Amino acid sequence: MTTPVIHGIIGYTITPFSADGSAIDLPALGRSIDQLIDNGVHAIAPLGSTGEGAYLSDAEWDQVSEFSLAHVAKRVPTIVSVSDLTTAKAVRRARFAEQHGADVVMVLPASYWKLSEAEILAHYRAIGDSINTPIMLYNNPATSGTDMSVDLILNIFNTVDNVTMVKESTGDIQRMHRLQQRGEGQVPFYNGCNPLALEAFAAGAKGWCTAAPNLIPALNLALYDAVLANDLNAARALFYRQLPLLEFILKGGLPATIKAGLRLTGLEAGDPRLPVFPLADAGVTQLHGLLAQLK
Amino acid sequence: MTTPVIHGIIGYTITPFSADGSAIDLPALGRSIDQLIDNGVHAIAPLGSTGEGAYLSDAEWDQVSEFSLAHVAKRVPTIVSVSDLTTAKAVRRARFAEQHGADVVMVLPASYWKLSEAEILAHYRAIGDSINTPIMLYNNPATSGTDMSVDLILNIFNTVDNVTMVKESTGDIQRMHRLQQRGEGQVPFYNGCNPLALEAFAAGAKGWCTAAPNLIPALNLALYDAVLANDLNAARALFYRQLPLLEFILKGGLPATIKAGLRLTGLEAGDPRLPVFPLADAGVTQLHGLLAQLK
Amino acid sequence: MTTPVIHGIIGYTITPFSADGSAIDLPALGRSIDQLIDNGVHAIAPLGSTGEGAYLSDAEWDQVSEFSLAHVAKRVPTIVSVSDLTTAKAVRRARFAEQHGADVVMVLPASYWKLSEAEILAHYRAIGDSINTPIMLYNNPATSGTDMSVDLILNIFNTVDNVTMVKESTGDIQRMHRLQQRGEGQVPFYNGCNPLALEAFAAGAKGWCTAAPNLIPALNLALYDAVLANDLNAARALFYRQLPLLEFILKGGLPATIKAGLRLTGLEAGDPRLPVFPLADAGVTQLHGLLAQLK
Amino acid sequence: MTTPVIHGIIGYTITPFSADGSAIDLPALGRSIDQLIDNGVHAIAPLGSTGEGAYLSDAEWDQVSEFSLAHVAKRVPTIVSVSDLTTAKAVRRARFAEQHGADVVMVLPASYWKLSEAEILAHYRAIGDSINTPIMLYNNPATSGTDMSVDLILNIFNTVDNVTMVKESTGDIQRMHRLQQRGEGQVPFYNGCNPLALEAFAAGAKGWCTAAPNLIPALNLALYDAVLANDLNAARALFYRQLPLLEFILKGGLPATIKAGLRLTGLEAGDPRLPVFPLADAGVTQLHGLLAQLK
Repeated sequence: MTTPVIHGIIGYTITPFSADGSAIDLPALGRSIDQLIDNGVHAIAPLGSTGEGAYLSDAEWDQVSEFSLAHVAKRVPTIVSVSDLTTAKAVRRARFAEQHGADVVMVLPASYWKLSEAEILAHYRAIGDSINTPIMLYNNPATSGTDMSVDLILNIFNTVDNVTMVKESTGDIQRMHRLQQRGEGQVPFYNGCNPLALEAFAAGAKGWCTAAPNLIPALNLALYDAVLANDLNAARALFYRQLPLLEFILKGGLPATIKAGLRLTGLEAGDPRLPVFPLADAGVTQLHGLLAQLK
Repeated sequence: MTTPVIHGIIGYTITPFSADGSAIDLPALGRSIDQLIDNGVHAIAPLGSTGEGAYLSDAEWDQVSEFSLAHVAKRVPTIVSVSDLTTAKAVRRARFAEQHGADVVMVLPASYWKLSEAEILAHYRAIGDSINTPIMLYNNPATSGTDMSVDLILNIFNTVDNVTMVKESTGDIQRMHRLQQRGEGQVPFYNGCNPLALEAFAAGAKGWCTAAPNLIPALNLALYDAVLANDLNAARALFYRQLPLLEFILKGGLPATIKAGLRLTGLEAGDPRLPVFPLADAGVTQLHGLLAQLK
Repeated sequence: MTTPVIHGIIGYTITPFSADGSAIDLPALGRSIDQLIDNGVHAIAPLGSTGEGAYLSDAEWDQVSEFSLAHVAKRVPTIVSVSDLTTAKAVRRARFAEQHGADVVMVLPASYWKLSEAEILAHYRAIGDSINTPIMLYNNPATSGTDMSVDLILNIFNTVDNVTMVKESTGDIQRMHRLQQRGEGQVPFYNGCNPLALEAFAAGAKGWCTAAPNLIPALNLALYDAVLANDLNAARALFYRQLPLLEFILKGGLPATIKAGLRLTGLEAGDPRLPVFPLADAGVTQLHGLLAQLK
Repeated sequence: MTTPVIHGIIGYTITPFSADGSAIDLPALGRSIDQLIDNGVHAIAPLGSTGEGAYLSDAEWDQVSEFSLAHVAKRVPTIVSVSDLTTAKAVRRARFAEQHGADVVMVLPASYWKLSEAEILAHYRAIGDSINTPIMLYNNPATSGTDMSVDLILNIFNTVDNVTMVKESTGDIQRMHRLQQRGEGQVPFYNGCNPLALEAFAAGAKGWCTAAPNLIPALNLALYDAVLANDLNAARALFYRQLPLLEFILKGGLPATIKAGLRLTGLEAGDPRLPVFPLADAGVTQLHGLLAQLK
């Protein structure tokens, strides 16, 4: 197992549906991937929250996973979210992604029942034992219902060999401080909370996992570049410039807002699956205005 | 559509698995249903949280649903949980349950993404429009991630014709007060939080949705009888007598503790599906002690 | 030390101010006390939250304390709230109340800084050591900022001899269950959360600490009587009848709503001290309507 | 009214007590002030949380206020916390501080009762109307029990002329983003949460309100200097270097830890007032170790 160096702007893909919502629109998915890569993102992440991974059948999930990996074709690393409600299903997805060339798999301990720390650790261990691909541990209590403490995260990181990265999305910047401190600077962490983009980089995050580059890649990349250039003033200005859009897509829901934004730019990707609504007209108008300001 | 009168002790069934966890053990499921009915529960509810509904494949879900309905065979009403992550999947399950004879279907707005009130209403409306069976709306933010306000619940109740019952599991007794007050006594509500069994009946709940009758049916029924007999002192004494067990099964997780308890009484139902652990030895010993005290 | 048997409806007094707010209106205070006792409350509690104890100078606090005790004159037991921000000040108040005849003193661990469990225990111990009067421990995180766990409460109860009663105001009925269970039925607990009046009695509370009898004493007492008579149905009906008023006074703030209500009945007690506003006109109208319905 | 330019490191003073805790040790207070100024802090803030302002009698408060202002003697600006539980008392303190030369007064809406937005606004307006000195609005729900929304803060800022600065201590960095965005860069905000020192400066805070310079002034100042020099990498390294100490003083309580730290450096300032404990021996040892590492 060689761990790829994942850093910078990690672009999350949407999953385009046909007009009636029943089928995956693979050509549109290909275009959205190309657009992200052409615009300079440092990695591609299919089937995350933005990709409505939770709303796909197993067959659809496989289809999107296989297609995405083939289409990225190693131009940049690909990080496939393989979370599922049971350990057996998550293992199946992890193996599938590995077999089709995933550079990293991402695992959120999604579960209906609140899991104990031992259950979470065993879940990661079972997935880790079943593949040779690096795992990005993902903490996002807002969607998973499970908040992993920094101690638990470090325990998993130190116990499961191929857990080599941490994506933190609690929205509490102090979690990153603790990962940095208690991990003695040896735990690569990535930010998954858009409105914390500036602070996460200030705190030492290696990358920013975000769907925003579907809409404003240049600003996302410029923020990262300013950080690399050690230019805090420029980073701050770039952050505040894009913050209204970052807040908008968070508040409006990533699948709805990103799909609406892509539609505005000519890339038709269908609507989100119900019960998630497409962005309402007022929201589309607001999004249009926000994007216009950022041109 | 005739709405059945659902009241009293509504027993939730586990989903028994084979020893290796891969298959459903239908004979064991039948035995657990018979045991609940023989012990006097007023309704049977398969495929809820206790039934690990979220951890089943669609084929397994259909199998359990069909078998349970056939096996109950109208001895008591059956309430089938048909929650699923997308509206389309929940509709499919609701129709399936209806076609196989469900008296009521229960719907939790389970979703990966936080849903707006409009999205939740539309979800219920879509399910309601697709069947002629009464719907029990289920509010349980701890498992669904979505907390429906009393105002939203009443809006759905008043808007969607076949939403005729509300199961409340927030653990906040004041929600039931508000359902009673703002619903002007016309909204039948049911308690889904075991440690609130006494207070929910005091507040006017029509029934108690619980997995406890798998283990201590006589005490559950006696509490309800004391309430019907307007004997608060007896109800209080019965409540405190069973409270340690109610707290234990809540804290230990319903599938793990109920399956362990059934095993102690000779009804082998397998283990929960990973990532959920079976009850550890220390827990089994503690459960054994609790049950012995209640004999 | 003889512990008085405190039970039933414990009426909290307001602290009347002169029209310009600068002085205590003792005659009005006397009238409000007489009214509570004449209407049948089982105990009187001056200088609590309702009594704006936190907003008085030390001299004013002494004046109200001394006057109230003299005026009640042992017709019923008197429970004086002696909470203060430092241990030395709380000790001084406790001694003052004791010297002037208090039957019980009530102590909330009010503090600017979050206190450790050891600090809270020491605070109670210091007060307990300085007097021979029973202490009612008071848990109300919403006003004190400190939430005492049931374990801490029981530790204080078992460690400090004259802590012999617990007033619970978290609004979480399960705290009372735990006090009952872990205290093995030996810890007298009192409800301080008006909307939980019914459930607290169902759970075994010895009494209800409330400012409501300033306005609707008959209903408060009838609820308690129904509980004593083991008549759950009557208790439930009485509870729902008074619940809108209980919620109104909680939501509107006790000093503002109780003073407004007393004014409506002809007992002028001035306004609350700023920054607390008197009840606005719309609120007064609403209160008037609620009271009219309950006549 | 001339608004002083408040920026950089704003040092909070402790209030030294005599050995038996009954009197203020003014010479020690003078030494602690001199030490802060000699070490380069940009402003001095007496009687804040660190200064145990809430635990002083009115006479003591006046004594500390007057002495501190006279002793600082305009070497740097002085910001006096004048918060009190009633509006009348806060007005009195504000006038007192102004009369004795305060450059700024700081106001936390400390209150026993939860205040409405209108009540909070009126509180600030009453204080503002009574003085000609600039006011630093202070939001710290952990100690005041009142969390002011950004909208309310901006409303007060725009309505009350002499509210010209905002100190934010919720610990949520996104509050600062909103102050910056919705205030269109015109609302000077200051960080009051030690572990957010780096992120607050990254987000554009004008200063850092902290008791830490009593112990590690050089590191606090160096962090600010790195930010001024636009050197994010240096700022990050300086931040992580001092973070363990910042977390320690926050967790251990500022009066206890800062007084213990001053004692370690030879400046005896007595103990905090009960119920707050002095730092226990184990804590002193840990603090000694932390300080030694930072030398």
